[in-house]
Parts: sequence; C-alpha cells; structure tokens
Amino acid sequence: MALKEFNFNVLKKEKFARLGKITTRRGVIDTPAFMPVGTQATVKGSFIKDVIETGSQIVLSNTYHLMIRPGANRIKNAGGLHKFMNCKIPILTDSGGYQIMSLSRLNKIDRFKGAIFNSHIDGKKFILSPEQSIKIQKKLNSDIVMVLDECPRKTLDYNKILNAVDLSTEWAKRSKKEFGINKNKALFGIIQGGLFNNLRLKSLKELIKIGFDGYAIGGLAVGDSQKEMFKVLDYLKVHMPTNKPRYLMGVGTPSDILGSVLRGIDMFDCVLPTRAGRTGLAFTWNGRVNVRNAKYKKDNKPLDESVKKFNLNKYSKNYINHLFNTNEMLGSMILTLNNINFYQELMYEIRKNIKNGTFSKFYKKFAGKL
Amino acid sequence: MALKEFNFNVLKKEKFARLGKITTRRGVIDTPAFMPVGTQATVKGSFIKDVIETGSQIVLSNTYHLMIRPGANRIKNAGGLHKFMNCKIPILTDSGGYQIMSLSRLNKIDRFKGAIFNSHIDGKKFILSPEQSIKIQKKLNSDIVMVLDECPRKTLDYNKILNAVDLSTEWAKRSKKEFGINKNKALFGIIQGGLFNNLRLKSLKELIKIGFDGYAIGGLAVGDSQKEMFKVLDYLKVHMPTNKPRYLMGVGTPSDILGSVLRGIDMFDCVLPTRAGRTGLAFTWNGRVNVRNAKYKKDNKPLDESVKKFNLNKYSKNYINHLFNTNEMLGSMILTLNNINFYQELMYEIRKNIKNGTFSKFYKKFAGKL
Repeated sequence: MALKEFNFNVLKKEKFARLGKITTRRGVIDTPAFMPVGTQATVKGSFIKDVIETGSQIVLSNTYHLMIRPGANRIKNAGGLHKFMNCKIPILTDSGGYQIMSLSRLNKIDRFKGAIFNSHIDGKKFILSPEQSIKIQKKLNSDIVMVLDECPRKTLDYNKILNAVDLSTEWAKRSKKEFGINKNKALFGIIQGGLFNNLRLKSLKELIKIGFDGYAIGGLAVGDSQKEMFKVLDYLKVHMPTNKPRYLMGVGTPSDILGSVLRGIDMFDCVLPTRAGRTGLAFTWNGRVNVRNAKYKKDNKPLDESVKKFNLNKYSKNYINHLFNTNEMLGSMILTLNNINFYQELMYEIRKNIKNGTFSKFYKKFAGKL
Repeated sequence: MALKEFNFNVLKKEKFARLGKITTRRGVIDTPAFMPVGTQATVKGSFIKDVIETGSQIVLSNTYHLMIRPGANRIKNAGGLHKFMNCKIPILTDSGGYQIMSLSRLNKIDRFKGAIFNSHIDGKKFILSPEQSIKIQKKLNSDIVMVLDECPRKTLDYNKILNAVDLSTEWAKRSKKEFGINKNKALFGIIQGGLFNNLRLKSLKELIKIGFDGYAIGGLAVGDSQKEMFKVLDYLKVHMPTNKPRYLMGVGTPSDILGSVLRGIDMFDCVLPTRAGRTGLAFTWNGRVNVRNAKYKKDNKPLDESVKKFNLNKYSKNYINHLFNTNEMLGSMILTLNNINFYQELMYEIRKNIKNGTFSKFYKKFAGKL
C-alpha cells in the first residue's frame, strides 16, 4: 500500500455544517464520519468485515483497555493493531484520559509522572504519562493518535477545570514532542474547559499554538445536557481552525450528531449503537425500538423493510424479541449490525444533504424524530 | 419452490460406510451429514447464512425448547420455523424426549397422557403426549419430524430399559398415526434399548413394522463410552433397513463420527462444535486447540492457515486468546464458525473418501488424531 500523508479537505459548507474528506495511508474517511467503537480490539458482537460493510471508514480503539489487556507489546508483536484485529481501515486510538477518569480507580494525577491509577480489571497499578500514551499508540500503530488529557468529571468548579486545562495543555506539548514528525499519521489535540467558554477558548488557543492535525472536543457528554453541549459547540464553532478536522469525543445519539454537524463537527465516536444493540434497543429511521417490549411478540415485520444488508429485513421483531428473551447471542449480533448500519446510513444522508445544500431541511425533519 | 417428496438413496458403499443423498422439499442433504444444533431457533453465536456457507445442508431444532419459549403458536403465526429463523435449508426437529430426561424436572411418564414435566426455565408445568409433540412439530413445519420416545438415563437395569422400549414403541405408533400421510415431510422412529442388543433389536423390529422414513438411534451418548456405543452400532448395522437414513442422535466428537460412519450411520447432530466454540475449544485437522492456553499469547499464526472462509485464517491464536480473556463475544463467534466449518469439512472428506473407496484409509489416518 502506498503511504499517503494525512490530509483533510473541506469540500462543501452549508452554514457551519461541513462536508469533508480525510486522507490517510489506509484509506479515505468521508466526513462527517461516525467511528464505531472497538474498545478491546473488537467492535463488540460483530465481525470487522461487517462493520466495514455498513460503510464505516474508521474505527476507534482504546489505549486504556489495550494497555491493560492484552498489553501494547503483544499487539506490537502481532504486527500492530490493524493486523491483530484484522482491520483494513484506519484506526483512531484514544489516549486513555477519558477512561482513567470514568473507569479506573484513579490514585493521583502527577503533573510530571502522569496519571497513576489502578486497573478496573484486577486493580493492578499503572502509570500513564503523556509520553507513554503516545509510545503505546505508536506500538498499536494507529492512524490517528490522541494526546493524553486530563478529562475531569462534570463540575462547575472553575478552578478545577482551569487546572485541567493547564495540565492538558502541558501534556499536549509533551505529547506532540513525543509524537515527533510523522506525516503518515495524525496527532489530535483535545480541547478541555468544561462548560466555561473562556476556558474552552484558552484551551483551544494554546493547542493551536502547539499545532495539531485535528482538534477534538473532550469533556462533553460526561453528564451534561444536550443543550449545554450545544452551547459549547456554538461558542467554539467560530474559533476552531477551519482547515483541520473537528472531533466531538464520545458523542452521541442521532439527535446529538445532527445538532453537532449543524455546529461544524466532522467526527464522532460513541458506544451507543453497539451497547444499545446488545441490550435490545434498535435505532431506525422511525425512531428507537425496544425489541424486548412484549408487543413485538406478535410483530412479524422487520425493524426496517428497506434494510437488505446482512439480511436485516429477514428478521422479524417477533424473532429478535425471542432471541433477547432467551439470551441468545444472535439477538445482540443482529441489533449491533442494525445499529451500526443505521448510524452509517445517518452519516451518509448527512453528507448527501450537505452536498446538496439541503442539510438544514434534513436536520429539521429528523432532529426531533431520531 | 416445487414440492419434492422426501426420498433417500444410497449411492455408494464401502463396507458398511454409506454415501447417500436425501431429497427434501427444501433441498438435498448429502450423507453422511452433520446437522448443527439450533436449539432455540438459532445456531448459537452464528448467522444462519454463515452456517449454510460452511456446507451445512440441514440444521436441527428442539421441540422441547421451542414449546416453552417462544411457544409453537408464535412460530406458526410467524409462518413456521424456517421463516421465523430465516433458514432456507431443511430443519429436523427433535421430539422433546431427550430434553425431558436431561433438562426438565420430570414428574411422571404417563403411558396415555405422555410426559408430565416442569420447564427448566420457570418451573411451569407441561404435558407432552406423542400426539402433541407431532402437532407442535407440524406447527413448526419442520422437514424431518421425530417421534416422541422415552429416553432413559444410562442404566444397566434391564427392566427399566425394556419398559422404555415398550412405551417408546407404543408412542411411535401413536406418533405415526398423528403424523398421517405427508410425503413432503419425513417421520423418523427412534430405536431405544440401552446397551442390550436384544432390546435394541426388539425396538428396531417393532419400529420397522410400524414403518418410518428413517431410523434414529437414541439413548446413546448419554454417559456411555465410545466403545459401548460402537458395540451397539456394530450389532445394529446388519439389522437396520438399508434403504432408509440412519441417524445417530446427539453424536458426537470427530472420532465418534468417523467410527459411526464406519458402522453405517448417515446422519449426526451434536452441540459439541458450537458449545466447545463458545468456551474456547477449537477443532482443527491437527486436533483440538484450547485457545485459552497462555502459550497462544505469543502465537500469531491462525488455527489453520488453509481455512479462508469467513477470514478464519486472518485471526491469530494470539487474538482469539485475547478475545476469550476479555469475554468478547467475537471469540465465541469466530470459534463457532471455525468448528461448524471443521465439522462440515470433515463430513465432506468422509463423503469424498467413501466415493473414492478410500474411507477405510481415511478413517485410519484421522480416527486417532481428531
């Protein structure tokens, strides 16, 4: 495969919504893009070939989980994460910052040493410095590398957020240095600042000074409302560099995505479609369907007649209801594919509508419904 | 689809081993055949399309489980079991006899009323008569229907086995009557008799008198050794009708299958490939591989380089070991496909070798190894 330098182009704009294209050494990513989450080197409950067949052009995996199990060296020895999980398309790896806050038993954030935490699996102690996170992501050989940030829990404590911004900026600098120069990969900075506009701007400006291939917005979708999130995006949309991809981390529902695209976001990741799929919740163009609901026992129609991929329109709600009632894996497998497929259909329609200049209309039609 | 009458032909013999072909309204089944088990209207952990792609030409499902959940009427209302589970190929349904013995809390066998038992799911009381079992299987609309038998636990108590044979014969008669005449489906009798040759012969002769489309051997693989099982088969092989399919129920390991084909068996079913797959045990032409074994953490080779189907040769033992260590569904999904695929490769090789007159040689090469 010929190495291609990482590159991003905005092809079309409709107000703030952007149609774009990211070029990587492993293929292009049409934006706005949704990245299915493959936390532990697998998109839960699905074959990666099928994930790609839904139209996914990039998946996300997690440094935090992979450093604990199976360990970065084991993946390096296997030829990197792509070969390990048999994934041809680009992979973005998160730095670990978010999971250290949300999953681990965090002992201490040490400005110099990094985050000191105990694994949520067996309590084993780990220290993750900004440099170490980049080193691990290099071993994984991911295409888009994220800087280690301090992602605080939702709080309105200004000083806590200010400190997190300052630390994250310092760590972003160290991450950039460790990353070095590699035009075949990308390093993204992560904007922190909670719900404070001035801290968001401070964070963004300092990151721009360091210079990154893309800018992610972190510390949202950690308990804040959609309204609060959109307020931050509304503020940031006029300040963010226009020539770099903008990635809203960990978001979200179809409605979150529509509203964020409207506010200029290019990239998303979220466990929602896969996690919801495993628990019986299906996303469709007619809204959400909880297939465990007893009324579906008599419903021999599929979730969506028009979805022919993976024979999805051959499985009735009655059948899927039975699979969930009997704890059969196939239920999770079907809904996982259904949901990833729906999300990619949504992204496809979003891109098509921006291209046609009809996104505002599309947004109005579906933002409330989905 | 044009209705085809159920039909069986022996195409070639090598000593007692038989190459044959079953014709059904839903397609042909080359024998010796292995039927993957789809207990609850799903072959656990796999898409039915993939099960078929391994070369499976028929699957088995269970009256006992389906009558409890979701209930036969719900499947009938969905258009039958094939439509319910989106299965194009023939389905054989077991009658419930074996599961009533092995799974349920059995209250009583009543000669007239049938088996009275409590569901293993919620304790609900059920009565299953021979007629009721056939009625349910008609609602499921399976292609091969089994008579309800009394399948006793392994015992050397002659009288217990004698009683089970007598009851099973009586129930087989009632089943035949209830089944009626339907040339598009098949009804199989089930030979009981434990490890007693004279009781096996008595059971067989009485079933032949009633007249069935195929003859199954039940009550083996319930705790007996392979040697004991082969002794029964060695005895029966000269007595069983030559113009009807012979089905050894619930068997077995690759070695069991090879030894049983040598003794004239045409059809098999077993949960082993799927159940073993879900717990980390892979079947390969080089024998069994327990992928949970720590030594595979450093093994970046696939289970079998030559198996290209489903990308199976793209997953390293290292990766599959990681998936099982982290309880990722994909591990079970990969090994389930690997194992069903291996079983179907085994059946294919068995048929090819009988055709070529080399089955004895093939048997000697692999019976000990697999």
